[in-house]
Amino acid sequence: MATGKALDRFYSVIPAGGVGSRLWPLSRAGAPKFLHQISGTGESLLRDTWQRLAPLSGEERIMVVTGRAHEAAVCEQLPELEAHNLVLEDEQRESSAAIGLAAAILVRREPDVIIGSFHADHVVRGVAAFGQAVRQAVAVADAGYIVTIGIPPREPATGYGYIRATESLDFDGVATVLRADSFTEKPDVDTAVQYLHSGDYLWNAGMFVARADVLLEQLRRSEPELVAGLEELAAAWDTDARTDAVARIWPALTKVAIDYSVAEPAAEEGKLAVVPGHFAWYDVGDFSTIAKLGSNGRRSQLVTMGDAESVHAEDSSGLVMNQTGRVIAVIGLRDVVVVDTDDALLVTTTENAQRVKGVVDALKNSGRSDVL
Amino acid sequence: MATGKALDRFYSVIPAGGVGSRLWPLSRAGAPKFLHQISGTGESLLRDTWQRLAPLSGEERIMVVTGRAHEAAVCEQLPELEAHNLVLEDEQRESSAAIGLAAAILVRREPDVIIGSFHADHVVRGVAAFGQAVRQAVAVADAGYIVTIGIPPREPATGYGYIRATESLDFDGVATVLRADSFTEKPDVDTAVQYLHSGDYLWNAGMFVARADVLLEQLRRSEPELVAGLEELAAAWDTDARTDAVARIWPALTKVAIDYSVAEPAAEEGKLAVVPGHFAWYDVGDFSTIAKLGSNGRRSQLVTMGDAESVHAEDSSGLVMNQTGRVIAVIGLRDVVVVDTDDALLVTTTENAQRVKGVVDALKNSGRSDVL
Repeated sequence: MATGKALDRFYSVIPAGGVGSRLWPLSRAGAPKFLHQISGTGESLLRDTWQRLAPLSGEERIMVVTGRAHEAAVCEQLPELEAHNLVLEDEQRESSAAIGLAAAILVRREPDVIIGSFHADHVVRGVAAFGQAVRQAVAVADAGYIVTIGIPPREPATGYGYIRATESLDFDGVATVLRADSFTEKPDVDTAVQYLHSGDYLWNAGMFVARADVLLEQLRRSEPELVAGLEELAAAWDTDARTDAVARIWPALTKVAIDYSVAEPAAEEGKLAVVPGHFAWYDVGDFSTIAKLGSNGRRSQLVTMGDAESVHAEDSSGLVMNQTGRVIAVIGLRDVVVVDTDDALLVTTTENAQRVKGVVDALKNSGRSDVL
Repeated sequence: MATGKALDRFYSVIPAGGVGSRLWPLSRAGAPKFLHQISGTGESLLRDTWQRLAPLSGEERIMVVTGRAHEAAVCEQLPELEAHNLVLEDEQRESSAAIGLAAAILVRREPDVIIGSFHADHVVRGVAAFGQAVRQAVAVADAGYIVTIGIPPREPATGYGYIRATESLDFDGVATVLRADSFTEKPDVDTAVQYLHSGDYLWNAGMFVARADVLLEQLRRSEPELVAGLEELAAAWDTDARTDAVARIWPALTKVAIDYSVAEPAAEEGKLAVVPGHFAWYDVGDFSTIAKLGSNGRRSQLVTMGDAESVHAEDSSGLVMNQTGRVIAVIGLRDVVVVDTDDALLVTTTENAQRVKGVVDALKNSGRSDVL
């Protein structure tokens, strides 16, 4: 095994999509979740992701796949991003197209490239452990597996998907590798408790590492037309023909999540390996999670973000995001969520954080897409 | 008794002062409570007061005493206000100076004038009953009493002062007149319950009706220097000497509430009569009262003021004042208070409404007078 060598062939891919409508009015169609500072590092989630990956693949080997509408913001947040590593989508075609296109472009440039795909809008705490898991995943991927980094559950979460993995694989230099049996959707709370206690399940963090050629072959078996389209696009990508090819091919590509097109079929065929990631990981789906992250779980605390100096709180807990710089006074509210932006204000509680999406739907229906 | 004749000599006085810091960030030093639409009529409290009094004294016989800073706003809201009926204070010297100056000016113009003083920032529901009470008070005042209109308590309120009145006075044409025994400060809740059940107490609504000469004589007995100053000012008022007199006299006037300088001494001397007012009256001291007023006491309701169309509420009750026109989403909060203004936002609950003043003090101390 040549871990060093494999890591030299490693390329990071960051699919940066998804509005995050449960984080309205912070997240908007024009300013999605990954562009915002909500992890507590003082950097955006996208920049956090970049900084985790740069020590592993090098800055010159990180590709970002995002919507054309976000080009300026992404380039501003990632000034080190090289032009040939920015893939702009005219419209979102889901993760199989985004990651598949990155794989198809990169495999033409470097036939033996190993790619790792990491969402732009997740939070990781424990960068060293993250790096160790990625290195191990790269080593396992080099042997032909499609590898996912799974997170040992800390609690019976109902908001995440799970991976069942009971069989160990033997790899030199890799402490633990499991073979994935199956993927499951977000469970109900009883099932989640059972998963937690069984020890057989890990959270699906959507982190996939594989040789690009292996990934594309797996994808081809479930979505042959999609891969044909992606390869045609990739052939034109570094040429003058790109624009025409995108206009012709991209809109017709099948929309399917990579979990369904690659991960689940690979698990069924015994070709999906899981490296447990011993770091804290969060898919920041709602303001309740941001409050929990910001307070490190101390529920009595009020977390302030943005212009925190202008927030005057008494006898309150929860989260106040001050994006406007206005004076915000909060008195006597437990677990409150206040998100203050230029044209919209949200006031709710951490308990009701999931209901924010309903407001977004209601605003859409009432013709207020101007604030979405 | 000549009620008609006495009412012909009636002059309304509206002292319009008091910031209302429990109503921050709606009320500000530059835009006090009386200028805002919070009664639910769609008019400001000042305009409501004007419209209650105009049928009684006539528009040309309403005097407004307010701070010079509010001249433009007052004139805009009261275009019918005649110039000689606007008394501008350079700085507030409390109610004895404000009402006493009005009395001193008016008694020089009309020696037998009867004045009635009514706060600019109270809410009255039941204009006919209010008018009836004022007419009765004017009749009693014509006989030489200082008269206050007291409100039979609806509940054991701890935020109002009370008048004890057990002895009836006989007046032709006036259903009920009582002699005031004494005034009490805001009671604790046990005392308030006792007051309510005894039937011997009325709320002190700060409405005083008296012949101007009688009022000034009463005031002179407790504050002779103040009255001397006011009379000197009044002598200069309708002449070229006004500006000099104000600059010289006004800043030195004693600051004392008319309850202490006139009402309490008059009660001790048996010269204070009380006419019960059978109308709903509120001193809108905090947002809790506004919520109660707006919902007519139905606590499950969410009251919206300002741009109500841009408020999207789910499963919430309380009060949302949208002064900015921004979209405001409120989800899952009981008895919430949200007051959204251009440069400051308040989020609290009706239960904590009295604590708003503490925030105003804290902001003052932290150098944020720009938003006060």
